[in-house]
Amino acid sequence: MDIAIKPIGLIKSDFKVTTDIPRQSIYGKDKKACAIIDEEYALGLQGLQAGQFIEIVFYFNKSDKAPLLQYPCCGIEKKGVFSIRSPHRPNHIGISKVKILKIEKNIVYFTGVDMLNDTPIIDIKPSIAEI
Amino acid sequence: MDIAIKPIGLIKSDFKVTTDIPRQSIYGKDKKACAIIDEEYALGLQGLQAGQFIEIVFYFNKSDKAPLLQYPCCGIEKKGVFSIRSPHRPNHIGISKVKILKIEKNIVYFTGVDMLNDTPIIDIKPSIAEI
Repeated sequence: MDIAIKPIGLIKSDFKVTTDIPRQSIYGKDKKACAIIDEEYALGLQGLQAGQFIEIVFYFNKSDKAPLLQYPCCGIEKKGVFSIRSPHRPNHIGISKVKILKIEKNIVYFTGVDMLNDTPIIDIKPSIAEI
Repeated sequence: MDIAIKPIGLIKSDFKVTTDIPRQSIYGKDKKACAIIDEEYALGLQGLQAGQFIEIVFYFNKSDKAPLLQYPCCGIEKKGVFSIRSPHRPNHIGISKVKILKIEKNIVYFTGVDMLNDTPIIDIKPSIAEI
């Protein structure tokens, strides 16, 4: 059974190539970016606030191969892909915890970006500690 | 652009109907369940260990409608779907943080379940605090 996912928006960031990107969003917490949500979904942002942490679920659209064993970012021994947060993974799903700076209409400005420019957004959720 | 997702396994839990399920996995932390990973992906579990927290990304396959404004679990006022963790959401993606009890071959036993039996699994990642 294949599942069809339809992106709800796009990330706009300064990272044009993968080698520019910090390995996890905690290392890029001073970097600013925004999530442009398609207008048809903008109402779903109601209730989100500046200062709040959210999880952005996105699609690693520049990743292709996803070997089951890979070198972690700081390791010399290969590990299973489900034990690391590599972008090269089955289904290419990424999750980053970021902090909202402000929301203007359908645009969420945030810090903590580790996504490439034009990365498709799949979902936004409040961070579990926030609810 | 639609994205095609292929499940990597299935949740086996005691929750047969949605009304049995705790609203978030933190409330079901004493409940045990397991994730049966398809054998073709089992090698990807290498490196995960008992006691470790992981994020299971899954598909809410029993949800259908996803209104952009919904009542949160403990609220009397509707909020945007991206500001709550409702299962009824665009793209039907769920994320639960659970704790590994043990791993046997392609089966991950864990506590913290808030998924229905036979929920399709999309991805497993180490919890961000673990890496």
